[in-house]
Amino acid sequence: MTQTLPAGLTVTARVPASTANLGPGFDTLGMALGFYDEITVTTTAAGLTVRVEGEGAEDVPWGPSHLVVRAIERGLEVAGVWAGGLDVVCRNVIPHSRGLGSSASAAVGGLAAANGLVSLLDPALALTAAQLVQLSSEFEGHPDNASASVLGGAVVSWSEAPTVADGPQQYFAARLEVHPDIRIVALVPSEHSSTAHTRGMLPEQVPHADAAFNVSRAALAVVALTERPDLLMSATEDRLHQRQRATALPVTTRWIATLREHGIAAVVSGAGPTVLALTTAALPDELRRRAEAEGLRVLDLEVSDGVQVH
Amino acid sequence: MTQTLPAGLTVTARVPASTANLGPGFDTLGMALGFYDEITVTTTAAGLTVRVEGEGAEDVPWGPSHLVVRAIERGLEVAGVWAGGLDVVCRNVIPHSRGLGSSASAAVGGLAAANGLVSLLDPALALTAAQLVQLSSEFEGHPDNASASVLGGAVVSWSEAPTVADGPQQYFAARLEVHPDIRIVALVPSEHSSTAHTRGMLPEQVPHADAAFNVSRAALAVVALTERPDLLMSATEDRLHQRQRATALPVTTRWIATLREHGIAAVVSGAGPTVLALTTAALPDELRRRAEAEGLRVLDLEVSDGVQVH
Repeated sequence: MTQTLPAGLTVTARVPASTANLGPGFDTLGMALGFYDEITVTTTAAGLTVRVEGEGAEDVPWGPSHLVVRAIERGLEVAGVWAGGLDVVCRNVIPHSRGLGSSASAAVGGLAAANGLVSLLDPALALTAAQLVQLSSEFEGHPDNASASVLGGAVVSWSEAPTVADGPQQYFAARLEVHPDIRIVALVPSEHSSTAHTRGMLPEQVPHADAAFNVSRAALAVVALTERPDLLMSATEDRLHQRQRATALPVTTRWIATLREHGIAAVVSGAGPTVLALTTAALPDELRRRAEAEGLRVLDLEVSDGVQVH
Repeated sequence: MTQTLPAGLTVTARVPASTANLGPGFDTLGMALGFYDEITVTTTAAGLTVRVEGEGAEDVPWGPSHLVVRAIERGLEVAGVWAGGLDVVCRNVIPHSRGLGSSASAAVGGLAAANGLVSLLDPALALTAAQLVQLSSEFEGHPDNASASVLGGAVVSWSEAPTVADGPQQYFAARLEVHPDIRIVALVPSEHSSTAHTRGMLPEQVPHADAAFNVSRAALAVVALTERPDLLMSATEDRLHQRQRATALPVTTRWIATLREHGIAAVVSGAGPTVLALTTAALPDELRRRAEAEGLRVLDLEVSDGVQVH
């Protein structure tokens, strides 16, 4: 039996950005990053109003704000709850199409906001974290960004075949506690990247030796991220996605090489173009200045907790 | 300057068996298993005598006892120490050619025994654990069995390109502490397996999707082995080596399927034919009896510490 939300309920979801495809961990290793989009949803008697501030404000209604609304609707639908109308305000900080998970954050934020409304109506109807991972990853088609924004910390995420014919892929994730000595610095180029485009650059087949190489480094990445930051350089080596996309991301590729030559474990964030550096020391001032002089934004980031609703 | 060991020094190395290629962790994930070969080495004035008891006693001098002697000599050589003569006694328990790392144990045991003698002469000459991982893995050509027998626990191991032209591959490993709830049961068929033969059954190329699949499961395996035994079933899925070798190991393949149908995370141990089951409950009596009735040895094993010398 569908219950209806009364008008006048308000919740705000604060959802972190995320990185994915971390080093060897293609489609698997993600991490929640400490800058946040906020989505405030208020139930109304009828209609839908959406206001977007900040990143993507010019894209309404076909940009990520549309995704937020679809995610809210999906969250309500799965919980079996109906709203007469919705007022949605998105305050966006996460840059779009830079490999920082803005679309996953939109999906997670919308779902979490819906879940917050549902919980106000009846806590027994609330979706679990596992459901939020599943539903948000369905929007994405891969679980590493979305599960990071849901669970926080770093995540090992994976998918399984549908449990029923024509059912969705099943998505799962386990949270890792990132070693406190690890600092994250993002270098954000000004150009955009399309995951769909760069995904097309991956080969159908890869050498068995390269697969085994990434298997070892992905296992090592879990060890390095949680307990052995001294192993981050080896643990971030990759043969499955970064060099295959290198020509599409020349600035990214050059900066990863530069940072790694300085002993800093740098990787592509998601499908780029952002470069993520994992380090136990501060980024050398000279490199920071050079990146900024080239027009890259240099962001010192905390590893974040998962989405919060209040 | 080479120092010479006086006659009459005696050490015994107690070296655990190991598993490797654990589930998704081809050439990477290993674990030390609690049954042991013992190698006693005594310095003499001149000559070499070797006595083998137990497994492989009939193979002298071309079997693993020969490998033990080569490993002892290699250990002394790297430490810069010379022996007039050696008396070597091998008490072998680890079955050969079953995927339980007997050759890695021979290499590690020989190197560790040599290191024990070196330490009696001058502790400053002793080899480090990292050197033992390197030298023993050079004998093997892959690091997962050898590093498990050196370090104990489970290991994430990996290799890097030689640091000098014509130098050896560089081998490394990080130890993991296995969750105390995880029990190991080995089902050991009577037939032998050749790593060299089964390695030839692996394809040159694999689908990118299968590589990504194993990447996710290998990262997950580290999480499951150390903190989340509830995830062992997903964490032991593999697409890179087990099914490619399935036809060569029909008994193994059938038992892995049977155990997994019972919700028990079963994998090939090394290159087989041993089946390794990772479980938080006891093996059901009915399965145990059926395996034994088919002629498989069923061994309940502890995760072991690394090689010990006294």
